[in-house]
Amino acid sequence: MTLDPDIASRLKRDPAGLIAAVIQQHDTGEVLMLGWMNDEALDLTLKEGRVVFWSRSRQSLWRKGDTSGHAQWVKSVSLDCDADAVLVKVNQIGLACHTGAKTCFDAGGDLGAIVVDGGGGDKVESDA
Amino acid sequence: MTLDPDIASRLKRDPAGLIAAVIQQHDTGEVLMLGWMNDEALDLTLKEGRVVFWSRSRQSLWRKGDTSGHAQWVKSVSLDCDADAVLVKVNQIGLACHTGAKTCFDAGGDLGAIVVDGGGGDKVESDA
Repeated sequence: MTLDPDIASRLKRDPAGLIAAVIQQHDTGEVLMLGWMNDEALDLTLKEGRVVFWSRSRQSLWRKGDTSGHAQWVKSVSLDCDADAVLVKVNQIGLACHTGAKTCFDAGGDLGAIVVDGGGGDKVESDA
Repeated sequence: MTLDPDIASRLKRDPAGLIAAVIQQHDTGEVLMLGWMNDEALDLTLKEGRVVFWSRSRQSLWRKGDTSGHAQWVKSVSLDCDADAVLVKVNQIGLACHTGAKTCFDAGGDLGAIVVDGGGGDKVESDA
């Protein structure tokens, strides 16, 4: 299988041929992890029902859950406006992070950002 | 200002010196966009209350909203387990995407993934 040429022609890959893939639990909205995809990983993710990544450290494809059982079943895949990232909504089986944390961002942890109240607590519309 | 050395020493930057930044609306969970940060952009994002990115196309820093008014006010910043991405929860003023779409993934659009029911409709725990 190869990636649909209409999709392939739109992608803006980095010098390593990759786009970023944001993985989000479809029902809770939780952002689980960020991975990388080359054309083949994206093609398999679109066609096989489970998320497939390209491992930058191992330089190989990997299907999430093949080792851990913690598969990610695809609900939808959307490309962003400049075509260098996809948002993949999934049903995550078990824990998303290989460290045993629920999400990879729980594992890495909070960086202590300073919160300024300039935006207000609620969504503010412009005064147009 | 420079990035906290404890944070800087943890980052796993790409060959261009960048990490990925996933931007999520803090209350609705909607993933708004994905951008890129170098050390200075992350430092400013952590300290100034608004999200700052590195533009790969323009090779310069940009503070989201300076032109459009569509600022992103930071609620929290978390690093992931392998330190090549941050999740930034924000309060988005107005529309996130420069195309006029609500999110950059609305703008790029759905890629028509095949959905397989292998994971079931609900979250399934492993049988441990």
